[in-house]
Amino acid sequence: MATGSSEFAQMHQVAGFKLGTTSAGIKIPGRPDLVVMEIAQGSSVAGLFTQNAFCAAPVHVARQHLSSVSPRYMLTNTGNANAGTGESGMADALHSCEVLAEAAGVNSNQVLPFSTGVIGEPLPMSRLLAGIPDALNNLSEQGWAQAANGILTTDTRPKGASLQYPIGDTQITITGISKGSGMIKPNMATMLGYVATDAALDSELLHRALRLANEKSFNRITVDSDTSTNDSIMLVATGASGVTIDEALFEQFVEQLTKVFVDLAQAIVRDGEGASKFVAVTVDGAGDGPEALRVAYTIAESPLVKTALTASDPNWGRILAAIGRAGVAELDVNLVQLRLNGLLIAEQGARAFSYSEEAGQQAMAPEDIEIQVTLNRGQAAETVWTTDLTYEYVRINAEYRT
Amino acid sequence: MATGSSEFAQMHQVAGFKLGTTSAGIKIPGRPDLVVMEIAQGSSVAGLFTQNAFCAAPVHVARQHLSSVSPRYMLTNTGNANAGTGESGMADALHSCEVLAEAAGVNSNQVLPFSTGVIGEPLPMSRLLAGIPDALNNLSEQGWAQAANGILTTDTRPKGASLQYPIGDTQITITGISKGSGMIKPNMATMLGYVATDAALDSELLHRALRLANEKSFNRITVDSDTSTNDSIMLVATGASGVTIDEALFEQFVEQLTKVFVDLAQAIVRDGEGASKFVAVTVDGAGDGPEALRVAYTIAESPLVKTALTASDPNWGRILAAIGRAGVAELDVNLVQLRLNGLLIAEQGARAFSYSEEAGQQAMAPEDIEIQVTLNRGQAAETVWTTDLTYEYVRINAEYRT
Repeated sequence: MATGSSEFAQMHQVAGFKLGTTSAGIKIPGRPDLVVMEIAQGSSVAGLFTQNAFCAAPVHVARQHLSSVSPRYMLTNTGNANAGTGESGMADALHSCEVLAEAAGVNSNQVLPFSTGVIGEPLPMSRLLAGIPDALNNLSEQGWAQAANGILTTDTRPKGASLQYPIGDTQITITGISKGSGMIKPNMATMLGYVATDAALDSELLHRALRLANEKSFNRITVDSDTSTNDSIMLVATGASGVTIDEALFEQFVEQLTKVFVDLAQAIVRDGEGASKFVAVTVDGAGDGPEALRVAYTIAESPLVKTALTASDPNWGRILAAIGRAGVAELDVNLVQLRLNGLLIAEQGARAFSYSEEAGQQAMAPEDIEIQVTLNRGQAAETVWTTDLTYEYVRINAEYRT
Repeated sequence: MATGSSEFAQMHQVAGFKLGTTSAGIKIPGRPDLVVMEIAQGSSVAGLFTQNAFCAAPVHVARQHLSSVSPRYMLTNTGNANAGTGESGMADALHSCEVLAEAAGVNSNQVLPFSTGVIGEPLPMSRLLAGIPDALNNLSEQGWAQAANGILTTDTRPKGASLQYPIGDTQITITGISKGSGMIKPNMATMLGYVATDAALDSELLHRALRLANEKSFNRITVDSDTSTNDSIMLVATGASGVTIDEALFEQFVEQLTKVFVDLAQAIVRDGEGASKFVAVTVDGAGDGPEALRVAYTIAESPLVKTALTASDPNWGRILAAIGRAGVAELDVNLVQLRLNGLLIAEQGARAFSYSEEAGQQAMAPEDIEIQVTLNRGQAAETVWTTDLTYEYVRINAEYRT
């Protein structure tokens, strides 16, 4: 199950960034599962990685390589996360970099490895390595759609976003892909995301842009509150457009970049495991941002709220209960207002006088639901995006390894 | 679904504590749903209540009455939580105390009200009040089993625990009942619990005993991480045995009391909504108690761990991922050891050398599962109890109001 349109976005190419995809048979024969991305010399690259202490071997290696030189290649496999694999997992991640580097004629620390899939099983190295030549062979600036398919796990659809906007006479392009469906509560990054632009940014500005865009997108989604061991998001600036983003152009660039990031992050939620609803939880009138986020996440992650959403049941008592346990100091419950898709449901600690069960059911019927909570104790507001909790979620995750 | 034995405990009566149950038709005609408990004059009474800011009207009233006089009656209804009901809910809770007080010949603030059931709907007062005379009529020291049934909501079985232990020539009795099945992550108290003893304790010691026993029982369970609006746990000491618990006898008393509390708390988890597994998560070798609890709860509340448990799948990677995101500062993942029902599964950041998938499947097969995590960074240890996450949980909570 998934929500929203399954149409894949129109992807504008990014000069200086190529993608090549192949089927290496890592977990399932015949499906695309190995992707090489080539970054033109002279590009800037920024990355953010999971905060999970049990982070995967490729995350260790990618983080280390990124800190030493400017990367030229990114190697991604799906079907196996190479996480919980100890020292042999580290050796496998390093070795895959070496093999790709040799074939491409670069140093091995110019390759960043990424893996996604089942945790705790050894990477099938011979199949993975055997796939590298074909992936290199397929490298093309037109390779976005194939790559978007080649990084999926339990996702039901590829995820892409792309836009162009003018700076002077030049069209700047920002294009990206992402994957992720379960174990989704990124902390500083998503499952996997790759975004490239043909604008030029120096390393410091590129990192800043990445952090800002990420904070309003991948760091605002949750499917099941589980932060993955492999979350990584990469941003590449090839500079091929000839336009350099400086401080004067920075704000506008971040605004456009954030659009692409939000599209990619929301696409993950829309394709959340078993999702039948796409839910935006907005908390405003909060004392500060962290308070707004705490309330929003407590609602978004409550199994009882999520099952009520599945049933399109306006069981607002569960939302109030979630607000009440979110740890907001000295919360005046009489000031709290709750709206579902614009309909005022509760205020003054009780059902709103104007509310009717029929109107509530109507408000909950659509696939897209906005839960809006007004705390009326300050000016801060935050929005997080999530899904409902369905039988299908349980089925997918109970049967994942069988 | 539920786990463990469904046999109801043998309940020893507590002299000075009577229970009367009736069917008032509050939500479903014919089922026991109204319980009056009578506390002999001269008893001590202690209570703990939910920390949820949206706590229910009866919680407000019970807390207030308990702080002013020594209670003589407790009035409990199921089928309606009288929560999210604003000022009219407060008026209803107070009025129900008045009606019972008048019938019983006490002051209305000597009555404590308790409600459990659906949130946000007005209490059906006329039916509730009409049931009070019959409940009073049924008061008996033998009324424990009926009362255990009369406080249930989505529970599939009544929950009781009882023991006797000698102090000198006298047998001291501790007997209690509890209810709760969903919206279970008590914070200072459970859904509803009532425990009585015929020992005598002064008010200060009784409160201390309650806090100590509660901390190791109801505050160590989670079904779905949702803290209810109505959690309350009451402890009554009638003193009818003639034995007074002083400081010298206190430790032994708390030990016995904790046994009853743990039985009642575990019974709630065993009857957790949709539960097919009873899971103890023990974290030892932690830096301090809060750290051990944080890791234990992160595992116990992970939807991915819970669905793996449903499938009896030793998907230990999900457990490592939960440990890794529990926010333990400078966790050395190479020191962490993971055991499932005694079987060493993972160490040094990877699958244990001695582990086989077959042994893992065998370890996960039983209904009762112990997940044991050794952090090897300190001396603290904590255990929490939880359930798996099943289709049945989703069904129950998606269909709750229909």
